[in-house]
Amino acid sequence: MNYKMTGRFIAQLIAIEGVFMLPALMISLFSNETAAIKGFLYALAIILAFSGFLYLLCRKAKRQFGPRDGLVCVGVSWIMMSILGCLPFVFSGCIPHFVDALFETVSGFTTTGASILSDVEALPKGLLYWRSFTHWVGGMGVLVFLLAISTGGERGKGFTMHLMRAESPGPDVGKLVPKMKQTAIILYGIYMALTVLNLVFLLLGGMNLLEAVCTAFGTAGTGGFGVKNDSLGGYSSYIQWVTAIFMFLFGINFSCYYLLLLKQIRGVFRDEELRLYFGIAFVSVVLIAFNIYDLYGSIGETLKHSAFQVSSIMTTTGFSTTDFDQWPSFSKGILLMLMMVGACAGSTGGGIKVARVLLLFKSLRRNIRQILNPRKVMVVRNNGRPVEEKVLDNTNAFLSAYVIIIVLSFLILSLDNFSTGTNISAVLACFNNIGPGLEAVGPMANYGVYSAASKLVLIVDMLAGRLEIFPILVLLSRNTWRGK
Amino acid sequence: MNYKMTGRFIAQLIAIEGVFMLPALMISLFSNETAAIKGFLYALAIILAFSGFLYLLCRKAKRQFGPRDGLVCVGVSWIMMSILGCLPFVFSGCIPHFVDALFETVSGFTTTGASILSDVEALPKGLLYWRSFTHWVGGMGVLVFLLAISTGGERGKGFTMHLMRAESPGPDVGKLVPKMKQTAIILYGIYMALTVLNLVFLLLGGMNLLEAVCTAFGTAGTGGFGVKNDSLGGYSSYIQWVTAIFMFLFGINFSCYYLLLLKQIRGVFRDEELRLYFGIAFVSVVLIAFNIYDLYGSIGETLKHSAFQVSSIMTTTGFSTTDFDQWPSFSKGILLMLMMVGACAGSTGGGIKVARVLLLFKSLRRNIRQILNPRKVMVVRNNGRPVEEKVLDNTNAFLSAYVIIIVLSFLILSLDNFSTGTNISAVLACFNNIGPGLEAVGPMANYGVYSAASKLVLIVDMLAGRLEIFPILVLLSRNTWRGK
Repeated sequence: MNYKMTGRFIAQLIAIEGVFMLPALMISLFSNETAAIKGFLYALAIILAFSGFLYLLCRKAKRQFGPRDGLVCVGVSWIMMSILGCLPFVFSGCIPHFVDALFETVSGFTTTGASILSDVEALPKGLLYWRSFTHWVGGMGVLVFLLAISTGGERGKGFTMHLMRAESPGPDVGKLVPKMKQTAIILYGIYMALTVLNLVFLLLGGMNLLEAVCTAFGTAGTGGFGVKNDSLGGYSSYIQWVTAIFMFLFGINFSCYYLLLLKQIRGVFRDEELRLYFGIAFVSVVLIAFNIYDLYGSIGETLKHSAFQVSSIMTTTGFSTTDFDQWPSFSKGILLMLMMVGACAGSTGGGIKVARVLLLFKSLRRNIRQILNPRKVMVVRNNGRPVEEKVLDNTNAFLSAYVIIIVLSFLILSLDNFSTGTNISAVLACFNNIGPGLEAVGPMANYGVYSAASKLVLIVDMLAGRLEIFPILVLLSRNTWRGK
Repeated sequence: MNYKMTGRFIAQLIAIEGVFMLPALMISLFSNETAAIKGFLYALAIILAFSGFLYLLCRKAKRQFGPRDGLVCVGVSWIMMSILGCLPFVFSGCIPHFVDALFETVSGFTTTGASILSDVEALPKGLLYWRSFTHWVGGMGVLVFLLAISTGGERGKGFTMHLMRAESPGPDVGKLVPKMKQTAIILYGIYMALTVLNLVFLLLGGMNLLEAVCTAFGTAGTGGFGVKNDSLGGYSSYIQWVTAIFMFLFGINFSCYYLLLLKQIRGVFRDEELRLYFGIAFVSVVLIAFNIYDLYGSIGETLKHSAFQVSSIMTTTGFSTTDFDQWPSFSKGILLMLMMVGACAGSTGGGIKVARVLLLFKSLRRNIRQILNPRKVMVVRNNGRPVEEKVLDNTNAFLSAYVIIIVLSFLILSLDNFSTGTNISAVLACFNNIGPGLEAVGPMANYGVYSAASKLVLIVDMLAGRLEIFPILVLLSRNTWRGK
């Protein structure tokens, strides 16, 4: 383990987090929100002290940095970022209990959008902004942001690559361009441009600036924190359609947008993951529309609610326009399935990812064929290119870990004695970074009902889900902390 | 595909099934059950005609028989056996609808024990016996039985091995002795001896002969069809403890008993699967006992109900002594987990199997270590011996297929608009061959509430669960039916 390099990197990251808090502080200053101002100032003081101390402690570091360091660095970074990021909520007294504040912040950074607040509208504007901003920066990755802006000249070879591999979603992270730093800049560029476009569309629909910014952040990061108690239920159909479409756009692999910029349009339309993503979404919207038509009466309303909820759940955003917990079981079943499938790899969405589902199916098909023809050597292909066996092994290991984590989390949550449906949907909604579940944690309810122990389990689930399990498992592995 | 050899084998198998029906017919004759007698006679006539016709049609067969033929043969055999085995229920008018009768029979052969009957006690004795007997012969495998009794001299090399591989549960089927036929004889010998022992203990407890035989069949096959409407709730504590212990014994890998007979006691006690099986059961009993103590008051009652239900669910039998759907969520959560884990490989129990869970954990641990040390070559070991990569691949593919089948089945069942808890537990209880689920399909309810479409899905799930997925998937694969 290269502790010093990790420490120095975390110190820089925490400092960036402090800088990110400044706009939120400004909003609170303009709005004269005394409690929130106090919260931000106390938090900034602690961040400054902690970051400075850590940097001085870890100034001199070796340049060796392996995949293990990358995983540990990402895991610890996210935990530290969340602990310090929740301080404004605690010090302002808006979320007095530390576990609750941590839950809300982890839910923000991991773009889950699960909340313990029963009255979001009572939150000061500065905190509302900060809460939504965590979605935006968490969606594309805080470390990726730091890599995009820093020079990194003094770091060892492989540093940037190992970090991006560990933080970016998907079974196999490709570089868009040979240099990782350039890749990070391109990704954040596309991300920013799409967010601004979303913001403009929302402002054109008559939303006020703060609400529009927060909603755009929540959409871009596929987070789902709303600024209203009924999420997006009270807004116009125009705003709801704009959000439905942009959620879907942010669930697409960003490398597709890069290829579009390079005018390689054919490559984009032939992408197997993208086709499956569109296919699953289309079929789900149609099936749900048939199933819920009786509840809404008009085709327009039915399609809007169906499309919005499918887009929201599949991209793991978690906004809602209606209480889908009241829908028939079949529609809720489809939503539970979409929770697991999730969005495309390399997007800001969570879940297993469409690319991984595709690999699991292909790997299973290969296995059946192998049983039928034991002597033939068969290769799994993706977009025509053979997939490395290592990637397939990791995808299968991902599924094992995924199932094990769901079962164990479900077991601990059930100590709180809620219904089976509540507990299963809570675990799926947090682990896949969606937000609302069903029954007692449905779209019109919140996670305040769970005990502190259950909230801690869900916090770990959210982190494991966002970082795709392995960085968190590595932190828990004895092997990591052993000497040479 | 060697269609003729498959056809000839199925003809023999169906004939054996007819022979198996004779004792049931005798019981009905002795008890003057006119309806049941009619049912059995009609069924036997059809079986005789079908079996004879098929045998004549497939008399001359090539000797070549590969793994594909083994899988197809097992899959088709089980389907045919179930269709013909349900005829007595239909013709007697006791279960007039074909889908219901098929559900009950598949539930029997697959040792699931899920019933659509609301009043079991109204069933004629002959049918009660037949229903429980399907558990017994399905537990160890009908094909295994045929292999044990037939000479098989005229069959090609590999025939017996491929069939036993496809029908026997577990990630990797080992031979006890070099000859497969001998292995089958030893397995059925141990099975019969244990069943008789169980029967003697039940008779000593004052049960009448028919009830004791049916209960012993249900216990030995880890099936779970009861002869009373409240399963084993009305019997004495002695009977309940005897059943709890024997269910647990039938959930152990039968090769352990063979090793005990050979006095290789050290090998048995060092077996990793057996240790984990005991460990999981012990921890579950203790946790549930703490959780339900308030419901029963005395330590004796609490331990009895906890141990019985853990043994029943983990071995995937499905008998019950109490309505565990009334237990707190945590206890129900543990039971849902045990449903998935299941019993040992090479036992009569279902589920994922403890051996496979062990392999999945070891394979995951290897994967994490591999990420930490990319250059090191690592081998997964079981009981000290390296596990073939092919076995690991198959175990991972098994998990993928397992998850996919659960999700899709859950989705179709949810069309009937029952609760999430009902649908999930119904799929888990049928797919893992347990029987009772929770809520609307709890231990005091039955599967009659579901639509015919849902019952068909559950029928496929039960078959897929008993045959460990691949024979059923192979039947559905295009590759299987293609020419050379």
